[in-house]
Amino acid sequence: MSEIPDGTTQVTGGVDGLWAVIPAGGAGTRLWPFSRSSSPKFLHDMTGAGSSLLQSTWHRLEPLCGDHILVVTGVLHEAAVRVQLPGLAPANLLAEPSPRGSMAAIGLAAAILERRDPDAIIGSFAADHVIGEPEVFVDRVREAVAVAREGYVVTIGIEPTYPATGFGYIRVGDPLSIAGAPHGRQVRTFVEKPDEATARGFLETGEYHWNAGMFVMGATVLLDLLASFHPELAAGLRSIAAEPARLAELWPGLKVIAIDHAVAEPAAAAGRVAVVPGRFTWDDVGDFASLGSLLPDVAAAPGLKILGEADLVLAKDATGVVVPGSGRTVAVLGLEDIVVVDTPDAVLVTTRAHAQDVKALVDLLKATGRAGLT
Amino acid sequence: MSEIPDGTTQVTGGVDGLWAVIPAGGAGTRLWPFSRSSSPKFLHDMTGAGSSLLQSTWHRLEPLCGDHILVVTGVLHEAAVRVQLPGLAPANLLAEPSPRGSMAAIGLAAAILERRDPDAIIGSFAADHVIGEPEVFVDRVREAVAVAREGYVVTIGIEPTYPATGFGYIRVGDPLSIAGAPHGRQVRTFVEKPDEATARGFLETGEYHWNAGMFVMGATVLLDLLASFHPELAAGLRSIAAEPARLAELWPGLKVIAIDHAVAEPAAAAGRVAVVPGRFTWDDVGDFASLGSLLPDVAAAPGLKILGEADLVLAKDATGVVVPGSGRTVAVLGLEDIVVVDTPDAVLVTTRAHAQDVKALVDLLKATGRAGLT
Repeated sequence: MSEIPDGTTQVTGGVDGLWAVIPAGGAGTRLWPFSRSSSPKFLHDMTGAGSSLLQSTWHRLEPLCGDHILVVTGVLHEAAVRVQLPGLAPANLLAEPSPRGSMAAIGLAAAILERRDPDAIIGSFAADHVIGEPEVFVDRVREAVAVAREGYVVTIGIEPTYPATGFGYIRVGDPLSIAGAPHGRQVRTFVEKPDEATARGFLETGEYHWNAGMFVMGATVLLDLLASFHPELAAGLRSIAAEPARLAELWPGLKVIAIDHAVAEPAAAAGRVAVVPGRFTWDDVGDFASLGSLLPDVAAAPGLKILGEADLVLAKDATGVVVPGSGRTVAVLGLEDIVVVDTPDAVLVTTRAHAQDVKALVDLLKATGRAGLT
Repeated sequence: MSEIPDGTTQVTGGVDGLWAVIPAGGAGTRLWPFSRSSSPKFLHDMTGAGSSLLQSTWHRLEPLCGDHILVVTGVLHEAAVRVQLPGLAPANLLAEPSPRGSMAAIGLAAAILERRDPDAIIGSFAADHVIGEPEVFVDRVREAVAVAREGYVVTIGIEPTYPATGFGYIRVGDPLSIAGAPHGRQVRTFVEKPDEATARGFLETGEYHWNAGMFVMGATVLLDLLASFHPELAAGLRSIAAEPARLAELWPGLKVIAIDHAVAEPAAAAGRVAVVPGRFTWDDVGDFASLGSLLPDVAAAPGLKILGEADLVLAKDATGVVVPGSGRTVAVLGLEDIVVVDTPDAVLVTTRAHAQDVKALVDLLKATGRAGLT
């Protein structure tokens, strides 16, 4: 390992100059009542792995970055993040005064890192995604860094295994010939979530990958591109990095926009975006249906998934997902593809097919004066 | 009102010499986890009426009997019964040391009452049934008393409104010509719960009524009949009535048998049983499906029934029965004929179609060392 100026260390076998940025935000509304705005999904163990999604993200990145990891989260979650990540240096935890979208979150990290190291490459990886085959992931990130050093914004695409309608897609262009990045390709366009027929067509062409929202690029490359598309936002972020004391003053005026719309899409149109596709299990754990697909079957009950203490679940002729979370017994009888989520102040009963509609329930709670439950 | 020897009073407009006996037993297993062996359904408000089934039973009988009402319950529930029925005289609450079937429970009441009044007519009415149109009920009981004075065991039959497979049936014989009992008829036989085709056939003949387990007869008539079929049981009950101090000694030796098998069926074969049919809403609230049929729809959600605080239920595209019972919010999304029952230590999720199978879950709890939840 080698000492670097801010007192952190470079991990053996890691990627020189690479900093991981973990935006840890989002309420996980469709995972209510398990995930709440006060306790969002990245703080939860959603897979029975024994660690939260945030901790799993950290562990996945450590072999690449050591403790060169910045976490950007809301002030509300700052304390919980510190507790969950004892290895996170105080200087590497950025607390957003309020949520202003992924561009402001990742852009602030980029602006701070370009001051530490003008050649810094940053890789942005959401705190609440699940990835299998971490060795494939790590390998693709290494390739992405090689491509990023050539000035590209690089996204890691997931080779699709079914015609998903819940994810956006990336359409690839020509292969790139960059040393150390055999899978690197130009990106033609980003495509919004398609309907199933369209998704099926995408898979047939072999030209489309799932957009997992993972971006690798030079910190300065990102900010310079942002400056060309949204100059005030780039300037605001660089001002905060130069004078951190002005955070509270400048933050509320920053444009709220996703990095996809702010930089990735316009940069793709300008030929500045590349993709390194990989075949590994990936899920954004967006709802209880995807949660269910990530959990193993209960040995004695094929088709039944339990997240939490299995002893609390009494199931007969039941398939689906049960999340016991209040210490109470949850009994499920004669139901297929059911979703039951038990928490100390609310219980949800729905079906896998309605998993996407849970957000509507949360909206209903807010509309009826029960926002405290959300 | 007129004073009678035991210090109680005869109600104005009531039936002279009629004593109501309320056997308050049964765990209501198919209503778990709402009903428990420690807190059975007769102690609960199962219809949103604002009173428990036991209290509703008491109120239904008061116009007939005033406070000439005996309650027979398990020692475990004695205190709760006293609290729920402040009008119940201590001498009229009989506590069974252990459950020994309906014949022992009703027979003990009969043996005690024949000592108070050899001409006493007793009417036995379960503590956990729901009856609509109480004026029709009261009228039929008056008729039943008139028939009982002629020495019959009289049951009140319910005119069936659909081919129920969950109830036993009574097949009527010739009309009786007894003054004050225009609806009185001989009973040919009692029939066990039929399958649906058989039940349909029953309804076509017009000769069958539901057996609601309500019996009216002279206390001495009942005990003398019992003495002819099960002499030891009758003798044991009369011994306890003569020497109440021997209850603990004699009770455990009594035969465990239902009044239907012990007396009603053999007495019917001997031509000693009559029926007074009535058309009124009646239900034994045996499971959550029948519970649901007794509850009104939520105004804003046709097909959705709530027993408890409606404010705790958040439903969208849902029909069925929801019982919030722990103060927690219960959210139900996109489910038809669902049953959700929330209690402080257990939550049940099933469907109306599986309502009868809840007993199997309770058996499973007992088999897996969780009898404490039952």
